Amino acid sequence: MSDRVYIFDTTLRDGEQVPGCQLTTKEKIEVALELQALGVDILEAGFPISSPGDFNSVVEISKAVTEPVICGLARAKKEDIECTAEALKFAKRKRIHTGIGSSDMHIKYKFNSTREKILEQAIWAVKYAKSFVEDVEFYAEDAGRADLDFLVKLTEAVIGAGATVVNIPDTTGYCLPHTFGNRIKYVFEHVKNVHQATISVHCHNDLGLASANSIEGLVNGARQVEVTMNGIGERAGNTSLEEVVMIMKTHQDLKLHTNINTKLIYPTSLLVSEMMRMPVQPNKAIVGKNAFAHSSGIHQDGFLKHAENYEIINPQEVGIPSSSIVLTARSGRHALKHRLEILGYSFEKAELDDMYKKFIALADEKKLITDEDLQELVAEQYPVKAEANRK
Amino acid sequence: MSDRVYIFDTTLRDGEQVPGCQLTTKEKIEVALELQALGVDILEAGFPISSPGDFNSVVEISKAVTEPVICGLARAKKEDIECTAEALKFAKRKRIHTGIGSSDMHIKYKFNSTREKILEQAIWAVKYAKSFVEDVEFYAEDAGRADLDFLVKLTEAVIGAGATVVNIPDTTGYCLPHTFGNRIKYVFEHVKNVHQATISVHCHNDLGLASANSIEGLVNGARQVEVTMNGIGERAGNTSLEEVVMIMKTHQDLKLHTNINTKLIYPTSLLVSEMMRMPVQPNKAIVGKNAFAHSSGIHQDGFLKHAENYEIINPQEVGIPSSSIVLTARSGRHALKHRLEILGYSFEKAELDDMYKKFIALADEKKLITDEDLQELVAEQYPVKAEANRK
Repeated sequence: MSDRVYIFDTTLRDGEQVPGCQLTTKEKIEVALELQALGVDILEAGFPISSPGDFNSVVEISKAVTEPVICGLARAKKEDIECTAEALKFAKRKRIHTGIGSSDMHIKYKFNSTREKILEQAIWAVKYAKSFVEDVEFYAEDAGRADLDFLVKLTEAVIGAGATVVNIPDTTGYCLPHTFGNRIKYVFEHVKNVHQATISVHCHNDLGLASANSIEGLVNGARQVEVTMNGIGERAGNTSLEEVVMIMKTHQDLKLHTNINTKLIYPTSLLVSEMMRMPVQPNKAIVGKNAFAHSSGIHQDGFLKHAENYEIINPQEVGIPSSSIVLTARSGRHALKHRLEILGYSFEKAELDDMYKKFIALADEKKLITDEDLQELVAEQYPVKAEANRK
Repeated sequence: MSDRVYIFDTTLRDGEQVPGCQLTTKEKIEVALELQALGVDILEAGFPISSPGDFNSVVEISKAVTEPVICGLARAKKEDIECTAEALKFAKRKRIHTGIGSSDMHIKYKFNSTREKILEQAIWAVKYAKSFVEDVEFYAEDAGRADLDFLVKLTEAVIGAGATVVNIPDTTGYCLPHTFGNRIKYVFEHVKNVHQATISVHCHNDLGLASANSIEGLVNGARQVEVTMNGIGERAGNTSLEEVVMIMKTHQDLKLHTNINTKLIYPTSLLVSEMMRMPVQPNKAIVGKNAFAHSSGIHQDGFLKHAENYEIINPQEVGIPSSSIVLTARSGRHALKHRLEILGYSFEKAELDDMYKKFIALADEKKLITDEDLQELVAEQYPVKAEANRK
């Protein structure tokens, strides 16, 4: 028996608020439909009060997308909650995501308030949102740095007020995997009514730990994870959908599963990257262009003998057609032989040794060796073979 | 009292073997000198037997770089070890990094061997490398998937044979933070002579967990971490130098410190990215161009009230001149007012409300609002202010 984890996608809200990423309503609908096909459970469509354009996008996504729950963000303010409720009116299944800062730093320096007043406002906001919709998620902003006992009190209070989901975000990307995991564990151990709601984790990547922290949160009991495609989002971004989903799929021992059709991960990644003008670096996990490329001789040799020696995920599982073997000066004889065979050549051992020397000399100079380079090399060294191959 | 962690940089070995990253010897020296200035402790300069070009680079780096230990890679083979020893002959301080597969998968499908034979070959390789240099590091390839008791036996044996450092790599990027941490803990609890050597961690990022796994390794006793600048390397890359260093610096409670001059992180990142033609994505932790950019209204407001509300690292600590506030349709009144003040304008509350409406309408259309756009907006709405400002 494996536990279901709900994927809350915020590509169009936390992802979209990034410099240069803003989309038109039409583009947002296209991304939303792709996310629906991918199988996300909750789709955060926007922050309706932030601008008329964003309001309109939430309205149009609510009409166009029917399977996932459509969610809109609202601060713990009357006008925000009313505006979000209005924007969601056409959604088949809807959720208001409201909340307020929970760390003493945010309470003092952002809200100039006190823990008591924040607690009251949180309870009020959840109740007010409940007057519009059944499904209300509460976010305890900056929970990663909040006083743990206050976080427990706040969580218990908003669940009591009717929150169906409580989001424990590491807003500034500060936590370490074991400390974030322990926070979630503490919440489960101390919040009396914790099983009346779903606990959600929402991590940021400022120290490169968003996926790790999210997984440790899930291992400790959270059952919703908030993510964006390609990990886009404020500053160093949010948790990557593709990373947490593939961690769960690769580690069956965690006994956690999602509804994601992983074969659509790569096409969705490409769509989001192009449309939002956010390039994905070649060494990005799962979706980078080198994620399944092998170039060193040691790795190529091991990979060709048995793919799992160096690959824990079959690229086809995430919609990438195949792994690639790239020929450079770090490549070995095995990779060269393999590529020559693909090109239709077979060589005796002595010939291959000779070809390998020439290949390495060329690669030291030229860096990346293409199939054309190999064809030329054969034509120079073994014109008879090249001639026969052309026929 | 805080413990010293040694930074083993493999940008020029594990990083350089990536498709398209190959550098000339001259370029490698330039990167190596920058890494020396940054303060890395060990610099893995190449894999000498892989090609004459790489051999020559190790020779030239050994002459040019004097502070870090210069390290060269060698499989557990006679010709590899001899070649690496030869390439390192000019190094002031030198290390041979030799090793072999340790997981049953590698032992069976890559080496077609047995645990007993692998153990023997490992001991032999360390002893042979010791006949050339004092400082010998042993890597237990694919240790992340190795049988734990065999890993303990192997580690104990190579330390007995004289290894000064034992590298426990998660070669395929398979481990989870808590499982990798537990592996290192197990090694410390069961290897009798463990304190006669330094335990090193070398993680890959296939699931986006390299930094997390490395940190959990350090928390559990490892005192060397193997990294590359910008996390470049095979497939989804290696552990990012900038991430693990800044995690240790941000979390003083870990009581771990390095010798890195963090103010050189950003310039080094730029040099490596440009020279190796490996773009860094905007949402890359620490060194991405958006890593310190704030665009949503909630964040901008909180950041302007008190930077630490949303920033756990001062960008100047890593050599980035300042944070940035980007104006989009997600920006709030506070950010608009702040930018207008920088441009020399002051507005009454009612005027600001009016300007904000116009600003949001423009931003819904234009996405990114520049200073020129704001100047035009003021000139249209408040020509007298614009005129006064120009004087």
